[in-house]
Amino acid sequence: MTRRSFPMSKVYGLLEPGPVVLLTTSHKAIANVMTMSWHTMMEFEPPLVGCIVSQNNFSFTALKVTRQCVLNVPTTELASKVVGCGNTSGRRVDKFEAFGLTPVPAAMVAPPLIAECYANLECRVVDTRLMNRYDFFVLEVIKAWVDPARKDPRTLHHRGRGAFMVAGNTIRLPSNMK
Amino acid sequence: MTRRSFPMSKVYGLLEPGPVVLLTTSHKAIANVMTMSWHTMMEFEPPLVGCIVSQNNFSFTALKVTRQCVLNVPTTELASKVVGCGNTSGRRVDKFEAFGLTPVPAAMVAPPLIAECYANLECRVVDTRLMNRYDFFVLEVIKAWVDPARKDPRTLHHRGRGAFMVAGNTIRLPSNMK
Repeated sequence: MTRRSFPMSKVYGLLEPGPVVLLTTSHKAIANVMTMSWHTMMEFEPPLVGCIVSQNNFSFTALKVTRQCVLNVPTTELASKVVGCGNTSGRRVDKFEAFGLTPVPAAMVAPPLIAECYANLECRVVDTRLMNRYDFFVLEVIKAWVDPARKDPRTLHHRGRGAFMVAGNTIRLPSNMK
Repeated sequence: MTRRSFPMSKVYGLLEPGPVVLLTTSHKAIANVMTMSWHTMMEFEPPLVGCIVSQNNFSFTALKVTRQCVLNVPTTELASKVVGCGNTSGRRVDKFEAFGLTPVPAAMVAPPLIAECYANLECRVVDTRLMNRYDFFVLEVIKAWVDPARKDPRTLHHRGRGAFMVAGNTIRLPSNMK
């Protein structure tokens, strides 16, 4: 795929519809992947993203210590890999190898991009005030990449217990909302 | 429609896929509606929801002062009303009247449910530590209602500038993820 730099001002449109993302971290030379659905935009520019990474997840310590991650947005072709990453722990499994995901070096952070994902957001942690109480991190997106050929990507949206809504058609309405 | 009480333990499945919601507040005897896409689940049970309500929105003061709201989940039939609520301000417009939305008394909070929405979550504000810096509120869902007849609701998912992805089909995969 072609991967192009993507403007910060448009990042919100990638995460606002609520896609499952694959969060990559890198700690002590081990890169890991976590499936995550609990995230929200918090600011347009620079783009801020709030997300929950549970203390039970192997990624928690990596994110807490290194303060870096990448949010990779998969589409429906990757559904089985997304579930595979959600069903396993980086404590025991090299998920890149186990699920055939290809790490690609990022520009600004240590964790890798996932080549198979149509968008990749390089992030740093900017606020941990709600980390101890809620496992909530505030991320700033510092570099974004997207495959410009994918106009209406068929993202996955978790409904719980293995049920995923697949993105349907996009409609356009006369809106003043950003 | 039939409106049934919905178990707290399943609330996350309503918000996790990222639907646009209509947030209702009530302050000084004025009920208002705001269109909102920036929210995330934060805990399963009791269900906690983090959301951004900008200080620029009329709803901000109502939420800050009364610490109560309802998250109403609309489906695609309501798209024009959702955009209408997003294009106008409660400072000048009675949105229930302007867009033909029907207020229904809630069980636990003062703001009304919206009758036309397939799910309604009565909430109280439980944490405002990130309110001043990010306009971020942590809500606890204290009562949930859903139309049990709607299995795969065609929710709306904002992609920015009037573009909404409409929920597509739901697929089911063997997942251990809650």
